Amino acid sequence: FSSASRSPLPMTAVAPKVEKEEEQVVNPWEVSAGKGGIGYDKLVDQFGCQRLDAATIDRVARLTGRPPHRFLRRGLFFAHRDFNEILDLYEKGEKFYLYTGRGPSSESLHLGHLVPFMFTKYLQDAFKVPLVIQLTDDEKFLWKNLTVNESKRLARENAKDIIACGFDVEKTFMFSDFNFVGGAFYENMVKVARCVTYNKVVGIFGFSQEDHIRKISFPPVQAVPSFPSSFPHLFSGMEQLRCLIPCAIDQDPYFRMTRDVAPRIGCQKPSLTESRFFPALQGESTKMSASDPNSAIYVTDSEEEIKKVNKYAFSGGQDSAELQRELGANLEVSPCPALEHFLLDNKLV
Amino acid sequence: FSSASRSPLPMTAVAPKVEKEEEQVVNPWEVSAGKGGIGYDKLVDQFGCQRLDAATIDRVARLTGRPPHRFLRRGLFFAHRDFNEILDLYEKGEKFYLYTGRGPSSESLHLGHLVPFMFTKYLQDAFKVPLVIQLTDDEKFLWKNLTVNESKRLARENAKDIIACGFDVEKTFMFSDFNFVGGAFYENMVKVARCVTYNKVVGIFGFSQEDHIRKISFPPVQAVPSFPSSFPHLFSGMEQLRCLIPCAIDQDPYFRMTRDVAPRIGCQKPSLTESRFFPALQGESTKMSASDPNSAIYVTDSEEEIKKVNKYAFSGGQDSAELQRELGANLEVSPCPALEHFLLDNKLV
Repeated sequence: FSSASRSPLPMTAVAPKVEKEEEQVVNPWEVSAGKGGIGYDKLVDQFGCQRLDAATIDRVARLTGRPPHRFLRRGLFFAHRDFNEILDLYEKGEKFYLYTGRGPSSESLHLGHLVPFMFTKYLQDAFKVPLVIQLTDDEKFLWKNLTVNESKRLARENAKDIIACGFDVEKTFMFSDFNFVGGAFYENMVKVARCVTYNKVVGIFGFSQEDHIRKISFPPVQAVPSFPSSFPHLFSGMEQLRCLIPCAIDQDPYFRMTRDVAPRIGCQKPSLTESRFFPALQGESTKMSASDPNSAIYVTDSEEEIKKVNKYAFSGGQDSAELQRELGANLEVSPCPALEHFLLDNKLV
Repeated sequence: FSSASRSPLPMTAVAPKVEKEEEQVVNPWEVSAGKGGIGYDKLVDQFGCQRLDAATIDRVARLTGRPPHRFLRRGLFFAHRDFNEILDLYEKGEKFYLYTGRGPSSESLHLGHLVPFMFTKYLQDAFKVPLVIQLTDDEKFLWKNLTVNESKRLARENAKDIIACGFDVEKTFMFSDFNFVGGAFYENMVKVARCVTYNKVVGIFGFSQEDHIRKISFPPVQAVPSFPSSFPHLFSGMEQLRCLIPCAIDQDPYFRMTRDVAPRIGCQKPSLTESRFFPALQGESTKMSASDPNSAIYVTDSEEEIKKVNKYAFSGGQDSAELQRELGANLEVSPCPALEHFLLDNKLV
């Protein structure tokens, strides 16, 4: 999981900087777009997921007997894969489980990282279902050039922030890959990897032949928490339990691969609800990222540190007072999107 | 580990069958040669290992105070990598550990499979050192298209045959990958994989882009038992303990890769002693293989079943009585090589 963007792959890093229509890049390691911001409509079409429409949101409200979360009302979770099937089952009285995660690349979570966890907490409360949370310390070790011990330490630090979101302690299992991989989980990793060719992962993730084989072998690690059989201590005898994954849309490639493989190894395809990105302080053209501390507000930032907003956040104001009078503020950019995420009262947005 | 040959990779399977000098193929999944048998000299040069010379064998005898094993005297273990360094350390009073293994692809071991285990047993007795034995059930699952449970069952069956070799129960740890991968072992897998590019494994193992990513991600699994830090329950505080791997020479690619990576992750390079192949009943041009039951004698074969020797073994006799009188028997082929392996008294060979 990488709600934070990582070093771009070589192939994307060399893209020429031209002023004409810039290609948007959205994958688990890089999110960038032109000045117009991310083209989410284009992404939905490109990835082949479905739009989360008003009827589905109404249905969630009806089934759970509570108002839909503001992230749904405001379209922050805007896409899905087979979310309706999960609702169909729930309507028939069947349960499912939630799976989300985080790649621990920073000392603490920033506001963008909180989005999937806040939404997952709402889903857990509303549907009263179990949850597994994966900390991919083995992934961050790979991409961030950390030591194993440093990756494990960051996972532990991040776990504290995640715990603070208030998940149901009776229904939540959080683990780090370095601590947990083995047994049935490893068996599923091997099964998934046997179903995916090198050409296939290159097509999905854009690896190059100079990438190390650990990158190539990582995707199954993020895939298998989608299968209840990876957690025999939680789901023994419930191997066909459906899984719902709340995540940002840059994680879609992992689960496209997972859904492709699932029926070939006798497993259910996971469903997804997918969110937009939390914008960087600098604006909507990229996401808030742990790789650039000035783009982000951390949950551990002091009052003093948060003043970086004054320096780095793009307010939407024009370059001069004259232009401001002439054109007015640009309300499409920060800080309005941030308010959209966190203001509790819809009337104020 | 694959003392048994497996389905050839696509790239080797399509090699044209021409009568002129046939290319010999020796990799962990295929061993085949022209009519002249395996060119071991060529292999040593091609792989870049060292020849096990008489001086080294004498040194083993001197250091251990016992006659060298017949596999050494008869040149069955004929090559090595830094075996002398292990002997240097031993001479100074330092210990090392042994690592060997097996890919469980058949119900029981055949005579060829016994060779590394018999030799390892001798080394353990002579040097009084610990031993780890890896059963790569996760590898056989991949290449043999078995289910996970069937692979695990074969590993268990094979473990019985291995135990029967009589290793020191106080100094031996045997494990299967499906049961043991995790923790420090998994950490080392990830560290190794971060040091090996896709291009590199293709160069060493000949994978193709249509191979699944589990093949590409397997080599680190066989690499890491070379590092004591993979076994904290055995070698805690002894992370620089040297490792000696007795194996057949087709396993050399794994350990070439391992030796290349070792110093980059702060580990010692493993040393190796490498054997020729146990010939198939049909002759020296390929090895005894579990993939072809008529090529092999199993340790579980009944007296009746062993009679297949009469039908399938190439005795070295000529095609007709007349030719036999004229040319005599060809003593270079079976059953002489088999006797070379198992006859205890050198005078009879």
